[in-house]
Amino acid sequence: MPLFPRTRLPSPYGSDRLVRLAARLRPALCDTLITVGSQEFPAHSLVLAGVSQQLGRRGRWALVKGISPSTFAQLLYFVYGESVELQPGELGPLEEAARTLGVQSLEEACRRARRDRARELGPG
Amino acid sequence: MPLFPRTRLPSPYGSDRLVRLAARLRPALCDTLITVGSQEFPAHSLVLAGVSQQLGRRGRWALVKGISPSTFAQLLYFVYGESVELQPGELGPLEEAARTLGVQSLEEACRRARRDRARELGPG
Repeated sequence: MPLFPRTRLPSPYGSDRLVRLAARLRPALCDTLITVGSQEFPAHSLVLAGVSQQLGRRGRWALVKGISPSTFAQLLYFVYGESVELQPGELGPLEEAARTLGVQSLEEACRRARRDRARELGPG
Repeated sequence: MPLFPRTRLPSPYGSDRLVRLAARLRPALCDTLITVGSQEFPAHSLVLAGVSQQLGRRGRWALVKGISPSTFAQLLYFVYGESVELQPGELGPLEEAARTLGVQSLEEACRRARRDRARELGPG
């Protein structure tokens, strides 16, 4: 086993018909533009609303401080049905971002990954 | 059997997660306004795109002549996951509207209903 294993988070939305369509169409039909630092992320408010009530907003808006563009990109990837590959050290910030933004499914996936990783490492 | 039976068209989208959410939120997060005659119908472009490529457009636009507001309302009902109850005489216009607007699933449902009705009436 590698010293610093990558963590893979499968997305539960990968088989969702409209999520798959939205991912294919993006940025077409996007009605939301989320600013994180200096980066802008187009998105579909309905897809976002499907994972978190607070994310279901149209128009342009900015994320609270504390979430990096790369972390948000991973969150969006997950929300749009793609599994996410994380380097060591990325799991923490992603779980925190999921909690802050109310994306319960991602929070769960991160928690499960942390637990599985702890099991792999074993006691002592 | 009643002389003039109603026809019920079940919608295949009734169990679709994002369609159900969109139906619940409507008109919130709607990015489309479709004018039919003097009536306006708010809708989610992503939900529309999921049933017909030509319907996946944002903003305000008007339907071609030949489709009544009530027929379009039935089409939208079906698209948003609700089964539709049709009076005699309504099936034809709805199937025609489905064909014009490229909603294949509705066209199929109408064809099936016509076929089933013909079977019920039997030969001669």
